[in-house]
Amino acid sequence: MTLIVQKFGGSSLATRERIRAVADRIHDSLSAGDKLAVVVSAMGDTTDDLTEAAGRISARPPEREMDVLLSTGELVSAALMSMTLNELGRDAVALSGPQAGIRTDGRFGRARITEIIPARLLQEIEAGRVPVVAGFQGLGLDGDLVTLARGTSDTSAVAVAVALAADKCEIYTDVEGIFTADPRIVSCAQKLDLIVYEEMLEMAKLGARVMHPRAVEIAEHFSLPVMVRSSFSDNAGTEIVDESAIQIETMQRVRAIAHDMDVARVTVRGVSDRPGLANAVFEPLATRHINIDVIVQNVSDGGKTDISFTVSENDLDTTLDLVRPVAAEIGAHDVVSSAQLGKVSIVGVGIQSTPGIAARMFGSLASAGINIVSITTSEIRITCLVDKNDVAQAAVVLHTEFGLDEPTK
Amino acid sequence: MTLIVQKFGGSSLATRERIRAVADRIHDSLSAGDKLAVVVSAMGDTTDDLTEAAGRISARPPEREMDVLLSTGELVSAALMSMTLNELGRDAVALSGPQAGIRTDGRFGRARITEIIPARLLQEIEAGRVPVVAGFQGLGLDGDLVTLARGTSDTSAVAVAVALAADKCEIYTDVEGIFTADPRIVSCAQKLDLIVYEEMLEMAKLGARVMHPRAVEIAEHFSLPVMVRSSFSDNAGTEIVDESAIQIETMQRVRAIAHDMDVARVTVRGVSDRPGLANAVFEPLATRHINIDVIVQNVSDGGKTDISFTVSENDLDTTLDLVRPVAAEIGAHDVVSSAQLGKVSIVGVGIQSTPGIAARMFGSLASAGINIVSITTSEIRITCLVDKNDVAQAAVVLHTEFGLDEPTK
Repeated sequence: MTLIVQKFGGSSLATRERIRAVADRIHDSLSAGDKLAVVVSAMGDTTDDLTEAAGRISARPPEREMDVLLSTGELVSAALMSMTLNELGRDAVALSGPQAGIRTDGRFGRARITEIIPARLLQEIEAGRVPVVAGFQGLGLDGDLVTLARGTSDTSAVAVAVALAADKCEIYTDVEGIFTADPRIVSCAQKLDLIVYEEMLEMAKLGARVMHPRAVEIAEHFSLPVMVRSSFSDNAGTEIVDESAIQIETMQRVRAIAHDMDVARVTVRGVSDRPGLANAVFEPLATRHINIDVIVQNVSDGGKTDISFTVSENDLDTTLDLVRPVAAEIGAHDVVSSAQLGKVSIVGVGIQSTPGIAARMFGSLASAGINIVSITTSEIRITCLVDKNDVAQAAVVLHTEFGLDEPTK
Repeated sequence: MTLIVQKFGGSSLATRERIRAVADRIHDSLSAGDKLAVVVSAMGDTTDDLTEAAGRISARPPEREMDVLLSTGELVSAALMSMTLNELGRDAVALSGPQAGIRTDGRFGRARITEIIPARLLQEIEAGRVPVVAGFQGLGLDGDLVTLARGTSDTSAVAVAVALAADKCEIYTDVEGIFTADPRIVSCAQKLDLIVYEEMLEMAKLGARVMHPRAVEIAEHFSLPVMVRSSFSDNAGTEIVDESAIQIETMQRVRAIAHDMDVARVTVRGVSDRPGLANAVFEPLATRHINIDVIVQNVSDGGKTDISFTVSENDLDTTLDLVRPVAAEIGAHDVVSSAQLGKVSIVGVGIQSTPGIAARMFGSLASAGINIVSITTSEIRITCLVDKNDVAQAAVVLHTEFGLDEPTK
């Protein structure tokens, strides 16, 4: 007997018919003898609709109240899914995040799961019922319900799977799996059968929004096998595995091209270079949990320094609000920003140990006439910041350069 | 300083503009120095829409899952109201029924409040915040959220007011108060300034759906002053008070005409009369919490008895499902039903002690050519079961007969 946690995203639940199709799939898994826990997102555009309703009331609604509002989306889909399963003759119970034992640090709007108390889930499974858990939420302080970061029913699913010591976690979504590049911009992108946790993490961070990075981190930490697959087909999808499961020749290659259009650059210009400068700029951003990336500090004329970094476009306004007073305080000349940039990256666990890969990347972009604004690297990734208009072409060029246009293992 | 619980119904919250108007009203009450707790229903037709969505999935969705689904309606309106108050500069927090300390007997779909633990509500009020409580819900067993009977955010509001030892409870709705009859069928119906708890209770039971009977019962039990008023005007509404607050000459009169179209009659025909017969028929209905009314048992030819009673139309199918096997078991001839009936009633705390009132009621209906199918009475009410098509005319006739067409005190 296998215990599986299945997570279904919003597009897989957008209509009654799709909920029914998902319920049929769950029914089949149960008939095959598997035990299941199910995690669901809000139906279709529900979260966007609720966010819009709040936005018409207030430009900045209190985060606590937003969480009360947004959490209802997942409760509705959990209840409808549970009803549909019952209609198919399967005992099922819809559970809120708190009821499913999901405890968090209580931070409204971006809570982190601290612990899952699996007693209720185990009790339901033991009794032959399917717990249908509202994703994206958990218990905060004072009995408040809090939401996790946007789109992170994935995180709920992976954490529930870990807490239940499940055999695997299946993330059902509207794509067939993880591809060598986004098929919308690279037409010959290939589906990967296997991907290593670290690669998936980089892909997720770089805008391949199939699975949330935090969910990948947790899966990796607990070596939980995860399968990303389509709820609209029976194809196998992509399995996320440990490095040891990948053949050595496969590793020494670029495995995928990632891109991200959601990039804004902020530059603090003309500050006198002294210790603690970067900390003064970045500390208030860290306090507000704004992720910064691609930090460049270069000395300009007259011993003055420019500090440049990227954030997601969503965070740009808040970032500027926080950085401008600091810039004034440290005697900077001014603060400028641009949203006309994007990122393109090559990803692969063997990149660092394979010579010449960086040179091939920069060379092929140069041949295509694409200017590189700045570069960052990690052990398994090289990222170039380029003009937003060049991102799609850069992805196509790199996909060909690194031999990804043909089917691979 | 006065502590008031204000409850706003679904039609008062149907749009963003109405939520804003209600928030302005709350703002004014706070500016006047009152302390407030607010209870809200779901916006407009939300509950109907959710019920319909469930109905498309299953003819009889599990009650537990229905409760998860329906409870989201009130959470949404509580969150939006709280945001709107915050936007007006008032600290407010949306609370679910369980968070507000509302404990119930855990019966899905028709839970009764057993206790309110007011700690959280008091803490919020003390801290200068307005708790906005999702009505119609409370904590059941196993941490489950349960809904109270349909439309009973009133009950939440009254119970919260009692638990907080509030000075009064204001029920805001889409009508100006309690009228001497339903203005939609009796055009010269007059608004009452005062009504006695018992009268209000009879009116509520008889289909004047301004306030739920259970809420009236609780208010009466704890002598909580309740004001029913319109959220669309500043008019005073109707105050629900103790009998002692009413002048003696006002009491010895018919105070209002109530009617109810939601009536179905079930007749078990041709059973041999013996002790325990009525119990055999009614016990399974009581177990399912189906309210029965206007019970008539009469002996027909050959020593056989017919037992006839009314239920609400909603409960007719379930009632027939429950009664048919019992009828077969006790050797009844058959079971027949009719939904072509309605009730018309005269209500007033002085009715019983005022001679001739019943005779005037029956006489005026006879003069109007309206046939009375059966009659029931309580201390403060006389109800006639008549053909559904005669209900409106009967109300008009009785309204005139008992001198209610002119403004009164």
